[in-house]
Amino acid sequence: MKELLKENASMKEMIDGLWLLPRDIVSEGYDVALLALSEQIPMTIHEYQTGTECFTWIIPEKWTCHEAYLETVDGNRLFSYSDNPLHVVSYSLPFEGIVTREELLKHLYSHPKLPDAIPFQFKYYDKDWGLCCSQQLKDSLTDDKYKVTIKTTFEAGNLKVGEVVIPGGSDESIVICAHLCHPAQVNDDLTGVVVGLEVMRNLLQQPNLRYTYRFLMVPETIGSVAYLSHNEALIPKMKGGLFLESMGREFPFALQSSFDATSEIDLCFSQAVKESGPDNWTAPFWGVICNDERQFNAPGIRVPMLSLSRVLHRSHSDGPYREYHSSDDIPDLVSHQSLEESKDLVLKMIDTLENNWLPVNKFKGEIFCSRYGIQFDFARDFSNSMSLFNIMFQLDGEKSLVEIAEICNTPFDTVKKTVDEFHKHNLVELRPCSNV
Amino acid sequence: MKELLKENASMKEMIDGLWLLPRDIVSEGYDVALLALSEQIPMTIHEYQTGTECFTWIIPEKWTCHEAYLETVDGNRLFSYSDNPLHVVSYSLPFEGIVTREELLKHLYSHPKLPDAIPFQFKYYDKDWGLCCSQQLKDSLTDDKYKVTIKTTFEAGNLKVGEVVIPGGSDESIVICAHLCHPAQVNDDLTGVVVGLEVMRNLLQQPNLRYTYRFLMVPETIGSVAYLSHNEALIPKMKGGLFLESMGREFPFALQSSFDATSEIDLCFSQAVKESGPDNWTAPFWGVICNDERQFNAPGIRVPMLSLSRVLHRSHSDGPYREYHSSDDIPDLVSHQSLEESKDLVLKMIDTLENNWLPVNKFKGEIFCSRYGIQFDFARDFSNSMSLFNIMFQLDGEKSLVEIAEICNTPFDTVKKTVDEFHKHNLVELRPCSNV
Amino acid sequence: MKELLKENASMKEMIDGLWLLPRDIVSEGYDVALLALSEQIPMTIHEYQTGTECFTWIIPEKWTCHEAYLETVDGNRLFSYSDNPLHVVSYSLPFEGIVTREELLKHLYSHPKLPDAIPFQFKYYDKDWGLCCSQQLKDSLTDDKYKVTIKTTFEAGNLKVGEVVIPGGSDESIVICAHLCHPAQVNDDLTGVVVGLEVMRNLLQQPNLRYTYRFLMVPETIGSVAYLSHNEALIPKMKGGLFLESMGREFPFALQSSFDATSEIDLCFSQAVKESGPDNWTAPFWGVICNDERQFNAPGIRVPMLSLSRVLHRSHSDGPYREYHSSDDIPDLVSHQSLEESKDLVLKMIDTLENNWLPVNKFKGEIFCSRYGIQFDFARDFSNSMSLFNIMFQLDGEKSLVEIAEICNTPFDTVKKTVDEFHKHNLVELRPCSNV
Repeated sequence: MKELLKENASMKEMIDGLWLLPRDIVSEGYDVALLALSEQIPMTIHEYQTGTECFTWIIPEKWTCHEAYLETVDGNRLFSYSDNPLHVVSYSLPFEGIVTREELLKHLYSHPKLPDAIPFQFKYYDKDWGLCCSQQLKDSLTDDKYKVTIKTTFEAGNLKVGEVVIPGGSDESIVICAHLCHPAQVNDDLTGVVVGLEVMRNLLQQPNLRYTYRFLMVPETIGSVAYLSHNEALIPKMKGGLFLESMGREFPFALQSSFDATSEIDLCFSQAVKESGPDNWTAPFWGVICNDERQFNAPGIRVPMLSLSRVLHRSHSDGPYREYHSSDDIPDLVSHQSLEESKDLVLKMIDTLENNWLPVNKFKGEIFCSRYGIQFDFARDFSNSMSLFNIMFQLDGEKSLVEIAEICNTPFDTVKKTVDEFHKHNLVELRPCSNV
Repeated sequence: MKELLKENASMKEMIDGLWLLPRDIVSEGYDVALLALSEQIPMTIHEYQTGTECFTWIIPEKWTCHEAYLETVDGNRLFSYSDNPLHVVSYSLPFEGIVTREELLKHLYSHPKLPDAIPFQFKYYDKDWGLCCSQQLKDSLTDDKYKVTIKTTFEAGNLKVGEVVIPGGSDESIVICAHLCHPAQVNDDLTGVVVGLEVMRNLLQQPNLRYTYRFLMVPETIGSVAYLSHNEALIPKMKGGLFLESMGREFPFALQSSFDATSEIDLCFSQAVKESGPDNWTAPFWGVICNDERQFNAPGIRVPMLSLSRVLHRSHSDGPYREYHSSDDIPDLVSHQSLEESKDLVLKMIDTLENNWLPVNKFKGEIFCSRYGIQFDFARDFSNSMSLFNIMFQLDGEKSLVEIAEICNTPFDTVKKTVDEFHKHNLVELRPCSNV
Repeated sequence: MKELLKENASMKEMIDGLWLLPRDIVSEGYDVALLALSEQIPMTIHEYQTGTECFTWIIPEKWTCHEAYLETVDGNRLFSYSDNPLHVVSYSLPFEGIVTREELLKHLYSHPKLPDAIPFQFKYYDKDWGLCCSQQLKDSLTDDKYKVTIKTTFEAGNLKVGEVVIPGGSDESIVICAHLCHPAQVNDDLTGVVVGLEVMRNLLQQPNLRYTYRFLMVPETIGSVAYLSHNEALIPKMKGGLFLESMGREFPFALQSSFDATSEIDLCFSQAVKESGPDNWTAPFWGVICNDERQFNAPGIRVPMLSLSRVLHRSHSDGPYREYHSSDDIPDLVSHQSLEESKDLVLKMIDTLENNWLPVNKFKGEIFCSRYGIQFDFARDFSNSMSLFNIMFQLDGEKSLVEIAEICNTPFDTVKKTVDEFHKHNLVELRPCSNV
């Protein structure tokens, strides 16, 4: 096999190398992409056989489209799968025959908003055949009959999940997740995959991680269900997680809370996002966009997984973004800078979580700060002095650093630096936030 | 005794047959009315003897007004108890004699707002004599002296409470209550009595009731106190209750919360009332009108009893309704349709309570809906799909159906149907809301 | 020693006798003032030696200013400590020498807002020398050099805390606190000292106090730390406290909550302040002014101490008051009437706390009020009747009287009188609010 990616490829290079692959949920294209990524960072590839029961789900068959095209009755080819894998509905049944224009239109999908683009359509569990083309092409179909050729096969195969694990001091783990499926598309969600991978490369350089990190690359939904149902023992140790979606655009960051917005990871991640830009915004669970975080947050699992994305608000006429689920979701939309910003923010979110402790006072009364060289000038710098004292007053083992930052309306780093100063002088003890 | 009511009388027929009776709290008129009702539906009549201690209360004597009238000194009769029982204050002492106009006016009551109507006045525990007439008649009294005749007797008797019991699967009971007293008045609260009775007739046709239902017909306040103090063992098993007041007008429904507005019965009843009409309204405990629900909610009892009525808001100049506590509260005010609507709403409230369970997931992750034929089309019907998933996500044994309806801002029936569908496929378990 | 104060001096007389003393935190002036007060009311004087460790603090040396003045190089004296003790920075190092104008200005403090006043400056732990004068005088300094003379000494001594204790039925104590330091100033906080002392004189006349009362006169901050660190066993028995600051002005009262604004003492004191005048206001912890309540509320102590003061809001350009920390804070600012009002309010606050109980019903259902001669006329006096019933309904041992006053939006005294009436008839039991 030709090498798709050079060694230690950049995020942009990984996108360029993999995006056009027909990465259907259980497919050759998906497998090729995952294999290429496994050469970029050490990972385990979990395989789940077609037909395996996964909670209430069943692993589907591997699907292959050998060829698919629409022709006029006299053999004039109008479009073909070989031009763009989006021309056939993902998991379409095979079909060959001449159909009336009316029948064709029941099986031919176009994009409701983008007249030039091919839409992304899937029928994983519906068992039907279908083609996709631009609205313009569809409008030009005036013949009475057309010839449809869809040569697809369904066969036993293996759904694959890539997992990168970086062990930390604790076996409590943080799950980063992105989905590698969706043929010939970039933002959704190859950008999430490459940002997650780059974050893991970075964490590999950090020697003393507090938590264990798991990065999962999955086919959407069924991949998460397959992984979770085969790793139930890990679930109670999953402290929380983050799904990454559409990381390459220049929109402000949108953070979607987990089902339990009061979890420690929710508090830490939202504090980091809030501090990282005045235009960043947060929304409740399901308030931004839905992906695999659904499975992690669902009943019986309840791992608080948030979702970070750079998309427009759902109420925006172009939301989540204009090219979503179409052949226009291409590498040109994605900038190196946006990917870097995304990676940096994820690292900052992780950093906040890693540094969140429950400080407990060993002192009584206010601390005699000048004795310890902790400087402040109450008269001249009222605000900073108040901040120091505000923080000091909360240190009784009931609130973690991030909660103190919230209560005192003070940046997390200021809280951390202040508490570190007290810690240096043995004035506080730092405990894990087990009961936050 | 002549039959007051024909067999299986309608709500309107019961009102027409009973309303004019002098239904004072312990009186012949009250007893006659209750006896007539006991022929409409099987009931137990509890009797409590005059002088019996009931919590801090004492059962009063039976009161009878033999005749009562006001005359000019020369014997011209101005009004008489025989014209309308409201002409004498309920529980007035007997009095006969010629009094000055000034003295008379201290004992003569008229209605503050309705110049033509006789007011309803009572002096159960004040021990005084009194008459009532219209403001117009009162204004025409210009003589120096008048002759008063009030022939009343107080004697040992029995306060009576009618109780209809329909046993359900559980001995936890729901108490429906209305007061049968108030001479010659209709909305307050004979309408509550007949709607309650009709509801019980309907429940008798329902074979598998979950809860036991008790319908109490009482003289206001003292009747409830008498019943509760003699049935203390039942109190812990009273899950909640509903007082019915002024059920015959065409005003929107007003639901008054119990003292503990977070009780399961409060949640169920308010959900049903909210869903039954955009003009219906709810108010806190004591925020609409006060009746026997006070005794059930009081300290030491704390049965969450709500109150349903069709009245104007307390802030309205005619509130609760213009004819309240007067001789104008007559059958003409009450429509068959209003009574039917009231009965239907009470049944819907009960239905919500009967169907409120605590669903607990037996599934993990999201349910693979298409496997079970649970249909939805995420792309085409975003709202219903979200509703399905919103409900699914709450099914972890922490919230009852009515709480899920509230959280998801979805009708109770939609929640119930969705959960029933899951239940049919053994995906959830339904538990009683013991800890709601 | 000449008697500074006559026997049984009034609040105003105590102020006049003591205000001008150089009451630095550990100083002869402070000691003289405390000794004079100890002849006004029986008190214990606690002494803490220089160098003693008190939590994280260390008792400072006794500081004495023998003389201090600024002169022109040719000996023209510009101002002197003997004119006003504020002319030298409290705890200034000694210094004698000719300095350049530039060097002098680094050590010469004036008031930012009051051009005629000498500011109050202190450098307890900074170890520097300094003088203070009016802005006008400072502006007139145009010579190149000036002669500075500051003759101060630092020596081992004793920090002193005065404590008046009035034992009550319980060993749970309420701490009243004010600071006696601050040379030649009145409102801050000699007014707090004299009001606290007068309150204690008054409490001494009350025979059956429920709680034990401790009145502490301290040098600010370090005095409280010294006392608390030497009386740790008392801390768990301190139910709460009140700091008194700036009690002599005619501003409305400002009540600053403790760190735990839900404490019983917070509820009682804020109810009393709210009821005492429509212009009185409350603010969260640290929202008005900061004094020794900081040490009591701090981590490891957590005694809920509120602060009462008569100051302008922090947002006011003159806040807390125009003459604050200056030589203008003199007896003329303080009226006899204001001090009396302050004392009366503190007594009312204490009275509310003393009378706050947890009432528990011994009755069931509503009380048959007329049986007990508890009068009300529902028809004529709807508001008072509702208030009676509102209160009655809350009496189930879950809310204290002050909480009922808050819930029912009724004055504390009305709640107390109603509950006392029920108590008289053995209808309720009164328990301590141990778990409030």
